[in-house]
Amino acid sequence: MELHEILKSLQTGKISLKKAQKLLSLYSIEKIEDFAKIDVGRKRRKGIPEVVFAETKTIDEIKKIIKSIMKKSNNIVVSRIQKNDLNKIIKFVEKLNYKVKTGKNCSSILIYKKPIRNENGKIGIITAGTSDIGVAEEARLMSESMNCKCVVSYDVGIAGIHRVFPTLKEFISNDIDVIIVVAGMEGALASLVSSMTDIPVIGVPTSVGYGYGKDGIAALASMLQSCSMGISVVNVDNGIAAGAIAANIANRRTRK
Amino acid sequence: MELHEILKSLQTGKISLKKAQKLLSLYSIEKIEDFAKIDVGRKRRKGIPEVVFAETKTIDEIKKIIKSIMKKSNNIVVSRIQKNDLNKIIKFVEKLNYKVKTGKNCSSILIYKKPIRNENGKIGIITAGTSDIGVAEEARLMSESMNCKCVVSYDVGIAGIHRVFPTLKEFISNDIDVIIVVAGMEGALASLVSSMTDIPVIGVPTSVGYGYGKDGIAALASMLQSCSMGISVVNVDNGIAAGAIAANIANRRTRK
Amino acid sequence: MELHEILKSLQTGKISLKKAQKLLSLYSIEKIEDFAKIDVGRKRRKGIPEVVFAETKTIDEIKKIIKSIMKKSNNIVVSRIQKNDLNKIIKFVEKLNYKVKTGKNCSSILIYKKPIRNENGKIGIITAGTSDIGVAEEARLMSESMNCKCVVSYDVGIAGIHRVFPTLKEFISNDIDVIIVVAGMEGALASLVSSMTDIPVIGVPTSVGYGYGKDGIAALASMLQSCSMGISVVNVDNGIAAGAIAANIANRRTRK
Amino acid sequence: MELHEILKSLQTGKISLKKAQKLLSLYSIEKIEDFAKIDVGRKRRKGIPEVVFAETKTIDEIKKIIKSIMKKSNNIVVSRIQKNDLNKIIKFVEKLNYKVKTGKNCSSILIYKKPIRNENGKIGIITAGTSDIGVAEEARLMSESMNCKCVVSYDVGIAGIHRVFPTLKEFISNDIDVIIVVAGMEGALASLVSSMTDIPVIGVPTSVGYGYGKDGIAALASMLQSCSMGISVVNVDNGIAAGAIAANIANRRTRK
Amino acid sequence: MELHEILKSLQTGKISLKKAQKLLSLYSIEKIEDFAKIDVGRKRRKGIPEVVFAETKTIDEIKKIIKSIMKKSNNIVVSRIQKNDLNKIIKFVEKLNYKVKTGKNCSSILIYKKPIRNENGKIGIITAGTSDIGVAEEARLMSESMNCKCVVSYDVGIAGIHRVFPTLKEFISNDIDVIIVVAGMEGALASLVSSMTDIPVIGVPTSVGYGYGKDGIAALASMLQSCSMGISVVNVDNGIAAGAIAANIANRRTRK
Amino acid sequence: MELHEILKSLQTGKISLKKAQKLLSLYSIEKIEDFAKIDVGRKRRKGIPEVVFAETKTIDEIKKIIKSIMKKSNNIVVSRIQKNDLNKIIKFVEKLNYKVKTGKNCSSILIYKKPIRNENGKIGIITAGTSDIGVAEEARLMSESMNCKCVVSYDVGIAGIHRVFPTLKEFISNDIDVIIVVAGMEGALASLVSSMTDIPVIGVPTSVGYGYGKDGIAALASMLQSCSMGISVVNVDNGIAAGAIAANIANRRTRK
Amino acid sequence: MELHEILKSLQTGKISLKKAQKLLSLYSIEKIEDFAKIDVGRKRRKGIPEVVFAETKTIDEIKKIIKSIMKKSNNIVVSRIQKNDLNKIIKFVEKLNYKVKTGKNCSSILIYKKPIRNENGKIGIITAGTSDIGVAEEARLMSESMNCKCVVSYDVGIAGIHRVFPTLKEFISNDIDVIIVVAGMEGALASLVSSMTDIPVIGVPTSVGYGYGKDGIAALASMLQSCSMGISVVNVDNGIAAGAIAANIANRRTRK
Amino acid sequence: MELHEILKSLQTGKISLKKAQKLLSLYSIEKIEDFAKIDVGRKRRKGIPEVVFAETKTIDEIKKIIKSIMKKSNNIVVSRIQKNDLNKIIKFVEKLNYKVKTGKNCSSILIYKKPIRNENGKIGIITAGTSDIGVAEEARLMSESMNCKCVVSYDVGIAGIHRVFPTLKEFISNDIDVIIVVAGMEGALASLVSSMTDIPVIGVPTSVGYGYGKDGIAALASMLQSCSMGISVVNVDNGIAAGAIAANIANRRTRK
Repeated sequence: MELHEILKSLQTGKISLKKAQKLLSLYSIEKIEDFAKIDVGRKRRKGIPEVVFAETKTIDEIKKIIKSIMKKSNNIVVSRIQKNDLNKIIKFVEKLNYKVKTGKNCSSILIYKKPIRNENGKIGIITAGTSDIGVAEEARLMSESMNCKCVVSYDVGIAGIHRVFPTLKEFISNDIDVIIVVAGMEGALASLVSSMTDIPVIGVPTSVGYGYGKDGIAALASMLQSCSMGISVVNVDNGIAAGAIAANIANRRTRK
Repeated sequence: MELHEILKSLQTGKISLKKAQKLLSLYSIEKIEDFAKIDVGRKRRKGIPEVVFAETKTIDEIKKIIKSIMKKSNNIVVSRIQKNDLNKIIKFVEKLNYKVKTGKNCSSILIYKKPIRNENGKIGIITAGTSDIGVAEEARLMSESMNCKCVVSYDVGIAGIHRVFPTLKEFISNDIDVIIVVAGMEGALASLVSSMTDIPVIGVPTSVGYGYGKDGIAALASMLQSCSMGISVVNVDNGIAAGAIAANIANRRTRK
Repeated sequence: MELHEILKSLQTGKISLKKAQKLLSLYSIEKIEDFAKIDVGRKRRKGIPEVVFAETKTIDEIKKIIKSIMKKSNNIVVSRIQKNDLNKIIKFVEKLNYKVKTGKNCSSILIYKKPIRNENGKIGIITAGTSDIGVAEEARLMSESMNCKCVVSYDVGIAGIHRVFPTLKEFISNDIDVIIVVAGMEGALASLVSSMTDIPVIGVPTSVGYGYGKDGIAALASMLQSCSMGISVVNVDNGIAAGAIAANIANRRTRK
Repeated sequence: MELHEILKSLQTGKISLKKAQKLLSLYSIEKIEDFAKIDVGRKRRKGIPEVVFAETKTIDEIKKIIKSIMKKSNNIVVSRIQKNDLNKIIKFVEKLNYKVKTGKNCSSILIYKKPIRNENGKIGIITAGTSDIGVAEEARLMSESMNCKCVVSYDVGIAGIHRVFPTLKEFISNDIDVIIVVAGMEGALASLVSSMTDIPVIGVPTSVGYGYGKDGIAALASMLQSCSMGISVVNVDNGIAAGAIAANIANRRTRK
Repeated sequence: MELHEILKSLQTGKISLKKAQKLLSLYSIEKIEDFAKIDVGRKRRKGIPEVVFAETKTIDEIKKIIKSIMKKSNNIVVSRIQKNDLNKIIKFVEKLNYKVKTGKNCSSILIYKKPIRNENGKIGIITAGTSDIGVAEEARLMSESMNCKCVVSYDVGIAGIHRVFPTLKEFISNDIDVIIVVAGMEGALASLVSSMTDIPVIGVPTSVGYGYGKDGIAALASMLQSCSMGISVVNVDNGIAAGAIAANIANRRTRK
Repeated sequence: MELHEILKSLQTGKISLKKAQKLLSLYSIEKIEDFAKIDVGRKRRKGIPEVVFAETKTIDEIKKIIKSIMKKSNNIVVSRIQKNDLNKIIKFVEKLNYKVKTGKNCSSILIYKKPIRNENGKIGIITAGTSDIGVAEEARLMSESMNCKCVVSYDVGIAGIHRVFPTLKEFISNDIDVIIVVAGMEGALASLVSSMTDIPVIGVPTSVGYGYGKDGIAALASMLQSCSMGISVVNVDNGIAAGAIAANIANRRTRK
Repeated sequence: MELHEILKSLQTGKISLKKAQKLLSLYSIEKIEDFAKIDVGRKRRKGIPEVVFAETKTIDEIKKIIKSIMKKSNNIVVSRIQKNDLNKIIKFVEKLNYKVKTGKNCSSILIYKKPIRNENGKIGIITAGTSDIGVAEEARLMSESMNCKCVVSYDVGIAGIHRVFPTLKEFISNDIDVIIVVAGMEGALASLVSSMTDIPVIGVPTSVGYGYGKDGIAALASMLQSCSMGISVVNVDNGIAAGAIAANIANRRTRK
Repeated sequence: MELHEILKSLQTGKISLKKAQKLLSLYSIEKIEDFAKIDVGRKRRKGIPEVVFAETKTIDEIKKIIKSIMKKSNNIVVSRIQKNDLNKIIKFVEKLNYKVKTGKNCSSILIYKKPIRNENGKIGIITAGTSDIGVAEEARLMSESMNCKCVVSYDVGIAGIHRVFPTLKEFISNDIDVIIVVAGMEGALASLVSSMTDIPVIGVPTSVGYGYGKDGIAALASMLQSCSMGISVVNVDNGIAAGAIAANIANRRTRK
């Protein structure tokens, strides 16, 4: 029943107020369902792959999900795979004739059918220490799944400030759209980078560090408090989100 | 003395190792000073105005700073002005023949000489409640100071979810580059907006709310935890930073 | 344009993919707007009054909002009115010929046109100390605005455990539907009450107390950790929400 | 000795004040013991099963407790059973000729003699992600042990907002008494659901998520701060309590 | 109706089960009420005066409460009186012909009729700094209200460790029963005192200090973590409770 | 050199000021050493056994420490022994011909030569749940090592409030000196017990519980905030300290 | 009585064990008192002035303390003076014919008789922003009171990294012994400075900043987490302590 | 291109503004690279060895890093080696013909070629308990790698205050430059030591302790709040940093 029918039926006493109320609830939800169907389609066109969080799943569940999603998608990111499962899943995927991209020290993988083109936006990724590389690689995989080109520079800490400059030089030469700074400990690298460039910076605090402010809390607070007004932040260790956001920003620029 | 001179002098015994060490320190710092001078110039060209945090300053200090900066800049944002000082500062600025832009419920102002052109990137600003408007207006002033066009939609809470949709419609029609979502309480509006669009979202948690999670903590945590992978976040109530970052992103797109 | 038209136009090449994408976004949002209109109406029929949070508003803003809402509503709750504004607002409302209900030690008021009937659900409200009364009264006003009958018993602390029992007796005799327990300090009253009855309990921690666990944190933690499985909790000092939820529960029972 | 006897004996000097004091203490405690005995009975009649927290117990202790309680009860919930013990305990129970109900991804079980009738209140359970299902299933088992009918809808996240609507439609059609929303991450689903219905909502934050606000803290804060006034909350991961409270509310309605 | 009557009536069908259930609830609560009445009496005999928390009350409310309690009690402690009200309340009390005891830097007073005897237990009170004296004086007033003798030694910080020893000497000479250590900042004085004596120590952290660990948090944590196993702790600034507990302990010793 | 000698030597120029300063430092520290020697003796006479924290030690280190201390002491408490080491250590001790006392669910043991006499003070120990028993048993072992008599009552939660009363009755009949309340979750049992008796109460929050306020934080906050003024608190799970303090208090009473 | 006398008397039965125990306690404390007297003298010779925390004191109390200490000392630091009291206290001190040194934006003063010589160690002080100057000036006053020479450089933030270098150049040229870095917000300046020099760095986080990590928490965490291993930290805003420690370190160097 | 060339080219129109901007960025970064090279050299001369954090690395990665750094350095500290890897790494290093220094209970090692000379500054290290020794040994290894002499005194807790004095005596006799105090639990030892000497104190809170304030939080807060103004602090368990800073301070003194 359409909206006006319901209201008319109520007015003319054909249905009770309670009935009308229930019909209206159902009616509006049906409208939403139309919206829902469209929305799903639109999401897929954006090119953001589905991300499966593997940590809390058994290897069989993961395999099943991969199979099911890859039937209708071009690519999928599986994140936080248990150490022991990583190789098993890679072999499983290759048997299915999909391609796999992995990252250094990284428990996430990118599975895809059509080749990654790297023709969209350009993203620079920089880490403070070697322990931050795993998170940075998650960001890279995610960005590449959205067809961005990534320029990476790892282990550039604030303690050795001189190592920051050649990296920035490379980013400027490459006409980078967004910089992702991955840093644990005191997280000051994000402020430093942002203070020296007008390229937008996404800060990713990592859980590297110990004692007071560990678990990424010092780095998170430090990035949020940055006096340099060019940093926005994602949650601790959330390389996946950083990659998605950066690609989102970078790709808009190329779309115009 | 140049680098090789110092080293040579050391080698040939003209200077002591201690002297050489001191000279090298001074030498490298002089190099940096050159860099510094250039950097300052580059910053100014980017078009980010200086921001003066008025809260901890006397009205005389503020006036002095405004005068001094406006001599060499086109615009300046003065933020968090004490309630009683706001009108006095506006009058002072107008006497100096500069123009002033203010915001609703907003303790920040934008002072400028040349007209704001709104010809660069386009930014959508949306708030959850009326109490969030002051922070949103800070973001608007900051964005406009960087010549962005802002489309605003205030008081669109998640409690009245239906009010979100017409806003999104307007943003899409206007080809907005970035959306700034300003929300206190549970901050869920940012997740909701981000789940329905592929435009990059900057979340600004506000200190609206009380009890557990007050001071913006619930909204901040909520935005950082968002399962929708399209939000990056600035610190609580930091509308100024959100405006600068959004303009930074939006303007890159228009620059190409 | 309807959904199939858009898709057809795309298929037959009448419109570009980009155009189609934009039309679809607009289309689905229009659907939502229909939903929105209905939703607003349904909300009003539920009988939950609008709540205006006065703390961050000027007295003129409050007056304007009251006037505007009361034109189309039967009642409104204005909460957290500044001490100095309370009487002025009451006088203003009475001049408009609306009725006002106030609470002891309570900065909120209930404004209404048609008399409060108290014929729906029955709610028991119990506080641990005298300092908790203001919050309890907010819950009472809110419940009464939804036509519930409230039985209150204030200053029944766990330190004087014997005072709890006559209250419970009264609640059972009155066939209470829900009990709201308002308690600061260690908040143990909620556990105690819940352990002795099968009536659902809504716990409202208050910000009464000092030192470690102050600002309601001890009471909140205590209620959430309760080993008695019959308590659900609202935020610190949120009497308004407790009243709305309790009335919501109680009124469902009477509706059948 | 009765109260007046004690006091009289004191008055007439038969007993010392110290003796009287001791007798009075003992006297009043004896009175309480009567109360205690009744209370135990009343608890049992309410139909809330005993809940045994298995996590900190050995398998032998658990078996012993099950045996002992099932002698005089109709059902018992054993929660948080160690992964390795789950099947052993189920076999043990079936050998005793009791029936067992389990849940998906759920470490709790419901043991019962008489069949579960599902004829009391009706409860809707909805989760944001697949990782929240275990907690939701605990709520379901608990509710069913109290003879409620449960309608469940799992993996309905805010990131895919369109999936929320069909669920709500089903809940309204089924005349649900209470909705339990189980959500980790930013927990926004609870606000969203509550904003669209007048059915009381019990929020259960889960410990799903990582980084800042992990361990359910973001979801808890978000639910407590909700601007939609229809949510009350239980502790993180406490599906058992949510089920008990929901059944408590739903069953009152059917009892009238 | 007595217990067996109710049950019999149920058995013989004179009353319904619902009626029986209600009667039993009421019956057991009546039993409790007897207990309650006795309990109140017992409390009074213990000699712990009522404590009125003045901070959140108007001066008129305070006066009214004092009047009402002093009618049936020998003494009362009024704590946390607003600065402006202190002298007014003292005058008011003296007009009523009660006696008042005040403390240095202390916003609490002790009102009494019969003279304080100081003949029960003996309590030593020691503070780290001059800013801790107000809290220490609250403990003294409370202890004296329970007829304990107090030996005080103020401003004995760990920074001047040598000042601790003469105090301990005096305490031992006076055969002190309990020591109350009042300390803010790092609160180390409590550990130090406890490490040098076998007299039980009650630690009272105070809110003196600033920066990280302020509001008494550092002192509280420090006292709870003390490696010297002789300290138990009350909440920050809770001199009143410390006095009551210390007197409780000290007086038991003298009672035997 | 004695004090006056040093000063004289300085005055007459025999030693430099720097020398004098050093001598004075050494002099005063020598004085302290005398004190130290006495102090050690006094500690031993008090009858508090040494406590060895086993958790961070290897089994060989523990054995070595036990051997070494038992040579000159009558008893020793070894706390927090690793599960696998417990029986090995007990066997080791029995081989050395010392006696061992263990506790239920308790990883601590009491080793002693002369029999435990239980003739000093009397201590009541009460726990909220079965999971709190291990901590309670630590308190018991510690108290017994100081020759106190312990009356225990385990698993008396606030959820079954009626179970509290018979315990209190037994404590009063036994003329208990101090009550130790061991409780996790919301820790309300401590407030409840304290509100019904004038026996001093030592609260021991335990790390039982989960979600917000877990790790004993809710119980600790709740006990510190207690409105009943008779509780002092030790740190979470610190049964050892509670036992030592309680024995300290109880034994003073018997010593007079 | 001397130690051996006491023990002999006990041995020969002249005194009871209890008496001996008491005498020993008193004896050892007397020894300590000797130590105490010397200690006081030694402290004064070190040249650290007494510091009076004015915030919680009345102006009359402050005047009295100044008068009393200046009788026997050469200088005194009065810190955190209320805004309104500052000039009154300065006038009061000048009337007493003492000299006063003040600092910019600084609520602390240094009072002295003999001229400040600046001939001991050399200290560099650097602040991130203008709002940090008050705290830096406290450090300067404290250092100067200990006769150190201070080289200051204010408003050198990380956002304008180029401003850091000339400052470091000046510090190295001046042969500075210790650097005090005063910084709020993200506190990264301390890491940056420390990464570029081998001069020891004392970090002073300030309470400048807002939102998450405010009150100096972000700066504190950031400095404690610094990957540059050359920073030790004092508490938030504790310029006084930083000055004392820095002078302590710097002066040792000059003393040799 | 040099600076003036770039600017000239711009002025004369040889290059576009955009080109000039890019050239300037590159130019200034090249300048910085010169600085960087010098900086690296200067760092090495300071004698601070590289520190490799082994915890998050595989044994093969560690071996590779050791090999690579030792080619061009005299010594290296490898910290937080996994228990199982410790001996393997020591053997590996000895095979390479380097020397290794280990510490008691310590998972860090010092690898070196040229003998450690202990001829620079002198450092005193003191721990509160045996569990703190591992962290203290890290500080010792680090200090020794910088050729300092260390005097250590372990297991000197505040609970046995008399054990502190002989240690201080030894430190003064040895003319110690800096004292490192390593303490967990309540961390009061740092305050105590600092109150009795004018030697600078570096506090190292350790993660020893449990319950509220565990993970070193109580010790950290306590040291930061110390009323004795002579302590600066490093992060929890950061013995490495404490050793580096202490050596830094001590060595400056000897350098003059």
